[in-house]
Amino acid sequence: MTVRAGIVVTGTEVLSGRVMDRNGPWLSEQLLELGGDPIAIIVVGDRPQDILRALRFLTEEGCALVCTTGGLGPTADDLTAAAVGEFHGRAMVLDEALEGRIAEILRPLMGRWPNLDPEAVLVSNRKQAVVPEGSEILEPVGTAPGLVVTPAVGNGPTVVVLPGPPRELQPMWRAAIMNSPGLQQALHGAVEYRRDMLRLYGIPESEIAATLRAAETAGIELERLEITTCLRRGEVEVVTRYEPDGAGTYEQFAAFVRDRHPGTLFSDDGSTVDEQVFALLRGDGSRPSETIAVAESCTGGLLAARLTERPGSSEFVRGGLVVYSNEAKVALAGVDAQLIARAGAVSEEVAAALADGARAALGSDVGVGVTGIAGPDGATEGKPVGLVWLSVSHRDGRRVRRSVTLPGSRADIRDRSTTVALHLVRRLLSGDTG
Amino acid sequence: MTVRAGIVVTGTEVLSGRVMDRNGPWLSEQLLELGGDPIAIIVVGDRPQDILRALRFLTEEGCALVCTTGGLGPTADDLTAAAVGEFHGRAMVLDEALEGRIAEILRPLMGRWPNLDPEAVLVSNRKQAVVPEGSEILEPVGTAPGLVVTPAVGNGPTVVVLPGPPRELQPMWRAAIMNSPGLQQALHGAVEYRRDMLRLYGIPESEIAATLRAAETAGIELERLEITTCLRRGEVEVVTRYEPDGAGTYEQFAAFVRDRHPGTLFSDDGSTVDEQVFALLRGDGSRPSETIAVAESCTGGLLAARLTERPGSSEFVRGGLVVYSNEAKVALAGVDAQLIARAGAVSEEVAAALADGARAALGSDVGVGVTGIAGPDGATEGKPVGLVWLSVSHRDGRRVRRSVTLPGSRADIRDRSTTVALHLVRRLLSGDTG
Repeated sequence: MTVRAGIVVTGTEVLSGRVMDRNGPWLSEQLLELGGDPIAIIVVGDRPQDILRALRFLTEEGCALVCTTGGLGPTADDLTAAAVGEFHGRAMVLDEALEGRIAEILRPLMGRWPNLDPEAVLVSNRKQAVVPEGSEILEPVGTAPGLVVTPAVGNGPTVVVLPGPPRELQPMWRAAIMNSPGLQQALHGAVEYRRDMLRLYGIPESEIAATLRAAETAGIELERLEITTCLRRGEVEVVTRYEPDGAGTYEQFAAFVRDRHPGTLFSDDGSTVDEQVFALLRGDGSRPSETIAVAESCTGGLLAARLTERPGSSEFVRGGLVVYSNEAKVALAGVDAQLIARAGAVSEEVAAALADGARAALGSDVGVGVTGIAGPDGATEGKPVGLVWLSVSHRDGRRVRRSVTLPGSRADIRDRSTTVALHLVRRLLSGDTG
Repeated sequence: MTVRAGIVVTGTEVLSGRVMDRNGPWLSEQLLELGGDPIAIIVVGDRPQDILRALRFLTEEGCALVCTTGGLGPTADDLTAAAVGEFHGRAMVLDEALEGRIAEILRPLMGRWPNLDPEAVLVSNRKQAVVPEGSEILEPVGTAPGLVVTPAVGNGPTVVVLPGPPRELQPMWRAAIMNSPGLQQALHGAVEYRRDMLRLYGIPESEIAATLRAAETAGIELERLEITTCLRRGEVEVVTRYEPDGAGTYEQFAAFVRDRHPGTLFSDDGSTVDEQVFALLRGDGSRPSETIAVAESCTGGLLAARLTERPGSSEFVRGGLVVYSNEAKVALAGVDAQLIARAGAVSEEVAAALADGARAALGSDVGVGVTGIAGPDGATEGKPVGLVWLSVSHRDGRRVRRSVTLPGSRADIRDRSTTVALHLVRRLLSGDTG
């Protein structure tokens, strides 16, 4: 059985598009894993009426659990706790013990702000300790407490009130799953669904649509699987959610996709290309660890940044050269100026020279070179915006290379280029010819 | 007068958190500028019932205009057009002329996919040309057409159906604003609101809350202004939306904030610190242009990437050194190995040496050095996770520097460090001591 659930993201700054919401999707993923059935994420502004309407809608849609995010801050437009209290018919009361605990949290922080107005801090401190009477408190991770609120009388969804900053929300949620009687009660009886992902690189989404039709024709009971496909950062993701007894059917489906797309299916265990490259660089019993360095032009540092996203990457990532100008390509990556003049800065030859130059400059085993036209300007005869040349070379002489012409905006082209580069590194290190 | 509006983002991949929605916020911002009053962004999966429920909810809430995004693709789970057709009582019909136009678009694309199954393309082509009878077609930017659908009978919101990929949605929306009779009719009579933003750096949000209270006490009619504040990438944004006749009141408010926060208010014209740094580097009649280079450790390329986000940045950005390892700090940025041994890699001295080393290696006017502990590991006695030293030096000998201890995750710390760096560059180039 699944528990219908909804998420209400509050904040005029989110609704008006100035801040990207990361909480709704994150909570939705959490709920899915716990056997929840998230039916909607609703983003509303800081108007109590709009928060109430969203709560009523989700209640009418049969949600047994609703999570809200944001609106717990110190400013007057932070109204979520009061709106949820009103929704469930609970008066707002000052929790003095909580006020004291928040004060304890604030004291050390105040040191960071020499010019702080202590009055302002006191007011916000008290405001954050005013909660719906009889609600369960989730201890603050930052300064704002979370809440678990049930109806004072009658039926209605359990509402879990969470703060806006992801670094506060995520630990608070994890703690609540372990410790909150209210949340555990709301999720009671939910079946934990399985969720598996296939990742393919280098084919259009329509090919997957054809594969799904073929799998059905081949007699695989796809109706037992909840399959969604999407294109993301240049990869096609096929995510399947199924009840535990659908595992056999999923295995048939996964095998079918493996047979049909051997060259392009690169992950069937949920791992990303970033994780695969990280593992290949780290090495294992059968394979030595490798160090890597990059020399990038159009991506302007994004590839080095992506390689260093994970903790521990400093073990393998020697560093990078952002060689935006031709002078820098020559001076830092040792690219021959005449080669640039002859082949052009965006060329197979210069990409190769950048890969080798990165290895030489940083003394790494693997070097990556990226040079392209991110646009919107810079296109020349035969070299359109979106053309990117990439080359990956190894100390032992192995090399892989390719050119792509990427669609989209400057930002799309820069980001997509880093994906292409990671897949080339994966190919070189894994020996995979896909 | 404002036009109540709603946005329905469809896609199980968005609802389940695998894909970050950029369309809802973007459309909300567009609607605000056109005098719309967006009351909610609702993210639902690819289940027609959930799309219908969201449309009904927004209709009950009095929306005259609803935009949907996504669900126009070639796969079987792309169902938005049919759901909207059902909602407004219009049968789905094949538009053969449209089918022909889509075929024209697909032909050149097919070359990019040698192994493409032509049958799959044909099927998806036809599917995308099946539209609610009598609806207005928005010409495809990619392969999917958009729609403007009104009720077959009776009243109800005008529904603008848009594709999911932002690079298709955004041009299609802009074209619709100019050319779509249906959209223009729905927005008819809307007052174009004014929207102004103040950006402050280096104070907590609670200080702004106090300033708002003080402004009210000082007799400024804040009730005529719709003010929202939010903390974003380490800056406090104060956004005010008001009807044209509230302009005088806004000026009083902006002046009040200027007086109270002279050192921390850095933008009152909507400009970002990125744009201000870009303008300072470009120079003008009174000030020469300057070139810049960076040497970054913990940010791993993010600072160079941020400096090169804008087209034209190649004029000023010489490049960067990602000196993740101490060896790279020495070899590439010329940092004295004994200095690192003595002061530690994360220190004022090494940050300064990185800034100077970046200038020397890339021959730029300005150099930026960033070194810190992004965590979660790497903290040492007296050097906690989040400690970052930054230094900016100029060829002419000027230098600004600071250390910060940033909260949050590894990703937060890396991102926030780039904001601190840009504010230091702004200070050095503008002579602003704030």
